Amino acid sequence: MKFSNAKGTRDFPPETLVKRKYILNIIESVFKKFGFMPLETPALEQLETLTGKYGNEGDKLLFKVINSGDFAAKVDDETWKNKQSEKILRFICEKGLRYDLTVPLARFVASNRNEIVFPFKRYQMQPVWRADRPQRGRYREFWQCDIDTLGTNCLMNEAEIISMAVEIFKTLNLNVTIFINNRKILEAIAEKYQILSEFTRFTNIIDKLDKNDFESLKLDFESLGLSNQQIEELKKILKKYTFDTNGINQLKDIFLTNPKAIAGCNEFYEIYSYLEKSELNEKAVMIDLSLARGLDYYTGCIFEIKSNEETIGSIAGGGRYDNLTEVFGLKDVSGVGVSFGIDRIYDIMEKLKLLNHIRTSDVKVLLCHFDKNGQIYNFQKAAELRNNGISAEVYPDIKKINKQFEYAEKKEIDFVIITGEEEINTGVLTLKNLKHRTQEKLSFENVIERLNF
Amino acid sequence: MKFSNAKGTRDFPPETLVKRKYILNIIESVFKKFGFMPLETPALEQLETLTGKYGNEGDKLLFKVINSGDFAAKVDDETWKNKQSEKILRFICEKGLRYDLTVPLARFVASNRNEIVFPFKRYQMQPVWRADRPQRGRYREFWQCDIDTLGTNCLMNEAEIISMAVEIFKTLNLNVTIFINNRKILEAIAEKYQILSEFTRFTNIIDKLDKNDFESLKLDFESLGLSNQQIEELKKILKKYTFDTNGINQLKDIFLTNPKAIAGCNEFYEIYSYLEKSELNEKAVMIDLSLARGLDYYTGCIFEIKSNEETIGSIAGGGRYDNLTEVFGLKDVSGVGVSFGIDRIYDIMEKLKLLNHIRTSDVKVLLCHFDKNGQIYNFQKAAELRNNGISAEVYPDIKKINKQFEYAEKKEIDFVIITGEEEINTGVLTLKNLKHRTQEKLSFENVIERLNF
Repeated sequence: MKFSNAKGTRDFPPETLVKRKYILNIIESVFKKFGFMPLETPALEQLETLTGKYGNEGDKLLFKVINSGDFAAKVDDETWKNKQSEKILRFICEKGLRYDLTVPLARFVASNRNEIVFPFKRYQMQPVWRADRPQRGRYREFWQCDIDTLGTNCLMNEAEIISMAVEIFKTLNLNVTIFINNRKILEAIAEKYQILSEFTRFTNIIDKLDKNDFESLKLDFESLGLSNQQIEELKKILKKYTFDTNGINQLKDIFLTNPKAIAGCNEFYEIYSYLEKSELNEKAVMIDLSLARGLDYYTGCIFEIKSNEETIGSIAGGGRYDNLTEVFGLKDVSGVGVSFGIDRIYDIMEKLKLLNHIRTSDVKVLLCHFDKNGQIYNFQKAAELRNNGISAEVYPDIKKINKQFEYAEKKEIDFVIITGEEEINTGVLTLKNLKHRTQEKLSFENVIERLNF
Repeated sequence: MKFSNAKGTRDFPPETLVKRKYILNIIESVFKKFGFMPLETPALEQLETLTGKYGNEGDKLLFKVINSGDFAAKVDDETWKNKQSEKILRFICEKGLRYDLTVPLARFVASNRNEIVFPFKRYQMQPVWRADRPQRGRYREFWQCDIDTLGTNCLMNEAEIISMAVEIFKTLNLNVTIFINNRKILEAIAEKYQILSEFTRFTNIIDKLDKNDFESLKLDFESLGLSNQQIEELKKILKKYTFDTNGINQLKDIFLTNPKAIAGCNEFYEIYSYLEKSELNEKAVMIDLSLARGLDYYTGCIFEIKSNEETIGSIAGGGRYDNLTEVFGLKDVSGVGVSFGIDRIYDIMEKLKLLNHIRTSDVKVLLCHFDKNGQIYNFQKAAELRNNGISAEVYPDIKKINKQFEYAEKKEIDFVIITGEEEINTGVLTLKNLKHRTQEKLSFENVIERLNF
């Protein structure tokens, strides 16, 4: 019998996981440096918490867990007879797997409102599940790394998100651009062309600009009732602007008196005021009016981060939303957040060879031996090495010495200690550098010194 | 609308999670120091991987995920009509949530046998799910922290487990005893009383000695056909022995010529030979013949670790098993492993106030302000502080200064910087220690110095 893992899920073997952990640790340490605190919510949620939050399509993508015991007994015979899966589902499944980290956050905040210190700055790094058709780069079980600040309208939080993203990707050595847009400005555009009633359709079309050029979407824009001249004008507007006073002024000039546009531009000015003196290079942040991700959800600024070197889509995204927690009975809690896509970040870094310096094991030395006496001696020496801060492993079997070296090499352990009768008698150890093929005889103190560089 | 989380699951708010992470980090760092490498497997497994591995009861406790789409259509009308949940399950559920970390490990190793470096030393720290009746201290979603060494018979690995456990609990400041037993010796006892055919029942009774005294189990032992005299004798044997040459000799004397007992005692001698010169205190490890956890599974040594101060049951357990991977088509892979129960370790440490020193946030300073100018100034100063290695947070709103102090205190941030017009103009900052109620005016360099202690 041979078994594989479930479709759309992955094992993370040590070599991969160590690199993933490297990325996650950097992200986490930046979150912490900015005062964000960790939160974890369960994988299993009540289905009533999850359904109706992600649209019809989302509901279909929820993994649902079947009730234990005689689930069928709870369905009345009439309903059962009709064999309608969707209808029966309500009776036989009470729980589901979380679809994202945002709805669980909202549920948590709403039910713990009295214990939570507001503004609440939390980060959350956990897997989520979606019953999507698995394909390259799209998994059914994947991780999200979210930060959100809840209970504050202050735009400093938007500036903070930009700062954190800049620091994270600088530390990861990844060249990215942070794209920013604002729902208010997109609404101003819709007002300008009198298509505000078609706002959702309008933004859905804009969203496609990511993968399609403007010309190929002309028919779509026409279907909104825009004239050829308007479409030409729109083409000139829906572009990128520098995120500084110049760029924002340029943007403001387009709309002049439209109050929504002014509000949106003022938000940009304010966010920029925090960042003005920071080390942002000119193109680290760009205003991109063609950015319209999930606007149903966001109410103010929206963000998207992309690699400058790999066109894999966005590697992080987020924005400000009002009343995240309202659906759970807690009103007037504005929030802003961003989610980092660890899987894509990993893929890009792997492709750019930015993870090659990460070693699978950080064990410094493998202690090798010829017989049980040597292994016992090594077991005790390894303990002493660890007490001196050196990660050490004793070869876990009695095998030919070459086999033991091979094991060290495969585990990327550079040094081996070879313990024979002579070493046990004299206490002088043989330390071999497998990489440089050098070998020395050293006292235990000198071994520590040599390995503790 | 108000929603709670699913029964038997928990949210981990920051205050709890930070303490859990402290424990997990210590455990992980010891694992790594001994050369164990991380592995993560998906939460979702194919049901065929999971069923039949945990006994009938276990199969019932598996959380099963219902197939997407029109699941009912896949069940033939006859089967559907009969409404037999158990029979229908096979048609409508293909996936389930992992029940432990051992079966996924076996599946992983069997299907990646050609890439894995043997002996394979891995650790795995992930949640598992069981559709158990939730009760105090028993959850439906809980974490396991496992280490296993696969592909080696060497008893040094058993000694290594003891060493690691000693180091972990010493670092956690928790007084524990590691109990060790061996299936071979329990079989020798069963042979002595000619009840080897009833071995499973026999060990099930022994298992109860954990919670019941010997007298109350007399009837159980009688039911095995043991005479009163034999039961009295058994009572004297099933006790604790010191884990050293004396203790093992004492044990050996009981059975004298029984080959299984001799084999078991020899295993003890060998494991002890590694540890002989270590700093084990006298009662860190005890041989306990009344320890019989899950013997169906284990074939050699078994371990159980208990707190010396809290009687909450075992906080870690494991042992050696032959052929873990056989059911997945890979034969002759012996292994030994132990699982640490983070939930119970947390509960005990919380009760003993061993986690009181862990701070929720490691932010050193909160930067406070009176107006937007102050906040902008603080935003930039905070970036400089972080560049100097100091975790810093800017209060994320413009509110009364006392509100800001309150926020700092609730987040356990000891220092605040108070930025007004004067501070911005002079560059001399006001640093207040909220704990000691002291306040100083300092240059930025001196602030760094003060906070970087």
